Amino acid sequence: MKVNTNPVRGMKDFLPDEAELREKVKRTIIDTYTTFGYRKIETPALEHLELLSGGDGGENEKLIFKILKRGEKLDLAGAKEENDLVDSGLKFDLTVSLSRIYANNQGNIPLPFKVIQADYVWRAERPQKGRYRQFMQCDIDIIGEKDIIAEIDLLLASSQALLNIGFKDFTIKINDRKVLHDLADKWGFEEKDHDSVFIALDKLDKIGVNGIQKELESKSFPPEAINAMLAELKIFNKGDEIADSFLSDELIKVIEAVTLSSNGQFKIEFDPTLVRGMGYYTGMIYEIKCDGYDGSVGGGGRYDKMIGKRIGQDVPACGISIGFERIVDIMLEQGQEKVKKEKLAIMFDPEKDDVKRVYAEAEMQRLSNKYIVSVVKKEKKFGKQLKKLLDQGFTHYTEIFDNKTTNTIPLKTNEE
Amino acid sequence: MKVNTNPVRGMKDFLPDEAELREKVKRTIIDTYTTFGYRKIETPALEHLELLSGGDGGENEKLIFKILKRGEKLDLAGAKEENDLVDSGLKFDLTVSLSRIYANNQGNIPLPFKVIQADYVWRAERPQKGRYRQFMQCDIDIIGEKDIIAEIDLLLASSQALLNIGFKDFTIKINDRKVLHDLADKWGFEEKDHDSVFIALDKLDKIGVNGIQKELESKSFPPEAINAMLAELKIFNKGDEIADSFLSDELIKVIEAVTLSSNGQFKIEFDPTLVRGMGYYTGMIYEIKCDGYDGSVGGGGRYDKMIGKRIGQDVPACGISIGFERIVDIMLEQGQEKVKKEKLAIMFDPEKDDVKRVYAEAEMQRLSNKYIVSVVKKEKKFGKQLKKLLDQGFTHYTEIFDNKTTNTIPLKTNEE
Repeated sequence: MKVNTNPVRGMKDFLPDEAELREKVKRTIIDTYTTFGYRKIETPALEHLELLSGGDGGENEKLIFKILKRGEKLDLAGAKEENDLVDSGLKFDLTVSLSRIYANNQGNIPLPFKVIQADYVWRAERPQKGRYRQFMQCDIDIIGEKDIIAEIDLLLASSQALLNIGFKDFTIKINDRKVLHDLADKWGFEEKDHDSVFIALDKLDKIGVNGIQKELESKSFPPEAINAMLAELKIFNKGDEIADSFLSDELIKVIEAVTLSSNGQFKIEFDPTLVRGMGYYTGMIYEIKCDGYDGSVGGGGRYDKMIGKRIGQDVPACGISIGFERIVDIMLEQGQEKVKKEKLAIMFDPEKDDVKRVYAEAEMQRLSNKYIVSVVKKEKKFGKQLKKLLDQGFTHYTEIFDNKTTNTIPLKTNEE
Repeated sequence: MKVNTNPVRGMKDFLPDEAELREKVKRTIIDTYTTFGYRKIETPALEHLELLSGGDGGENEKLIFKILKRGEKLDLAGAKEENDLVDSGLKFDLTVSLSRIYANNQGNIPLPFKVIQADYVWRAERPQKGRYRQFMQCDIDIIGEKDIIAEIDLLLASSQALLNIGFKDFTIKINDRKVLHDLADKWGFEEKDHDSVFIALDKLDKIGVNGIQKELESKSFPPEAINAMLAELKIFNKGDEIADSFLSDELIKVIEAVTLSSNGQFKIEFDPTLVRGMGYYTGMIYEIKCDGYDGSVGGGGRYDKMIGKRIGQDVPACGISIGFERIVDIMLEQGQEKVKKEKLAIMFDPEKDDVKRVYAEAEMQRLSNKYIVSVVKKEKKFGKQLKKLLDQGFTHYTEIFDNKTTNTIPLKTNEE
């Protein structure tokens, strides 16, 4: 039987070069966060559908991979709608699971709780270049801290993680949902229309001031409010000084603290047009852009009301997610795909060599910590085999003749 | 809305102590395998159902979590059977995905291909203590090596991984499907009955010689064959010397090579009653038992025919899986749950302290590599807060008075 050997539509296999790079990046992120006092937790891939469909996921709730009921619970004939057939789904982000695990362990978790999550999530999006239906998210969150100390900590930790990966010259854009509401009030939009205004504003990069004008006019918002907004957006575009007059004291403190700790390796700037999509944000929001690359490499915000929905009592919380897949893509574009290591082949001729001696040699070389060591069976056409070893990433080999080891010999690439 | 905040039935959340231990164990395993020249690959959680249901998964194929079709492809009214509704499933082991990724990249992968996989798999088993429906598997496999050099390598690498985790005094049991077939022939069973005989033999630990007798008699196999088998099983039970007369030359070579490299830290022994469940094994099979603990902490075997089913041409292959969940359970039983680290709280009073100085101090302490460093807002009741810091795993704190840092002060536990 010959079956389709491609991965499932919209998903991706990773061969060693890429898988090793991913492992390295993931470890660097987790290790950096650990030095800032964040601690790893893990939740299963599956979550109850009622939790996933609770309303905080926005558009993502339409993209859930749902799991068929099993055994007696599956009533194929009696099922009237999709949800009669399914009982769980793959998680589409890590925040929903975080709020669930916190709610489920409230009494046992001292606050503030500084959390790392580095896990896969799944979204049944239309497949497109560079976007996959299974992707890694690396989040940190602080639960139980209402002070801006939390935001400063999140931004410094995630910046340090990016620096440790090897990223520089990135810019943190920061805003506050409160600033956005104040602006919308000032422009003259009714509170019930704020979210529509923000959704339009969020597209500024893509559709420009004119596009926003069209979108807002199509919704029949008051022309004076639209005009006031457009006038201000044009001012924002001209220079930071004017935009800065909308800064809150809290934003100023966060920007100062992060700037002082940045040692000039990255920037943080106020962006009054930053919205970020998720409806659950209640305070500061932030996004990290990398000079010369589209899209963001990180983003997050404060969501003080989300956990309250689960446990009936508000708990302040905020988080930031590093765009793991985007980062790995950029590193690949930059040609950083190989995690370079010295790799030694211990050539072994089963006809001649003593197996004991071969493995003793391998162990000794491994203990020297200089090499990755692999015992390789010697083939008849040795020259051809040496070429194959190069293809397999070996950098050195050693032969065992009459139970005497020769020195390690570097393999020569064609470039040399 | 208050929803069920437990994880999905049969699955488990991991809070920091356990999540950090898991991360540490996983890294140790991957790093050890890397030094032996194995390389990590990754495949998605989802696989095509036709692949998962291809027959190599045995009983596991009945335990697949299936994914509902989406959008236009889901025809609820027209669906006649379960498989009309679903198009993929969560993988139940890593071997099926390995054979798929190899088949899909044949031309690009030089052989032998030494592979690490460390990923979650899912099985909808009846929930029971210590068994979860999502669990981690850590596998290594060698594709394209028919010589016993592959088996020796797998066994030495996985033993070293166990030693590096901190396990000692484990025993590798080894057998060969060929030995089993030779024995079944000798006893007088027909070849078509061999698998039934092996399934019974596999239960020797659980049901004993008498249980096997009952099971075989119930299947009406020839009484002489049953008697011959039972007589030999009683001999096996009495001592190694007699069992050893069934050893093949290849098994002897593997046992010798592994014993010589073990430095007395673990044992390898022939077990002619070892079967292992999976029908796809074609040659040597092995299992690792840990003295004093039930079940195995690892196992695997050679499966030279499986990849051929996908690509129409046999490729020799063998692998071993470390029982990650069992290992973590044993470590927890042994009280090894905490990954111990020095953790420093930089106390910060937003009313008095200069935020710049606080974060500069935090960065300096972090760079010293002595501590995990967390900036903590000082609370009014400082004595009470110090107790809370202990609960959160802090070992030291430092206060900033009038912009002068005190030394780091150890936090005292009640035991002291």
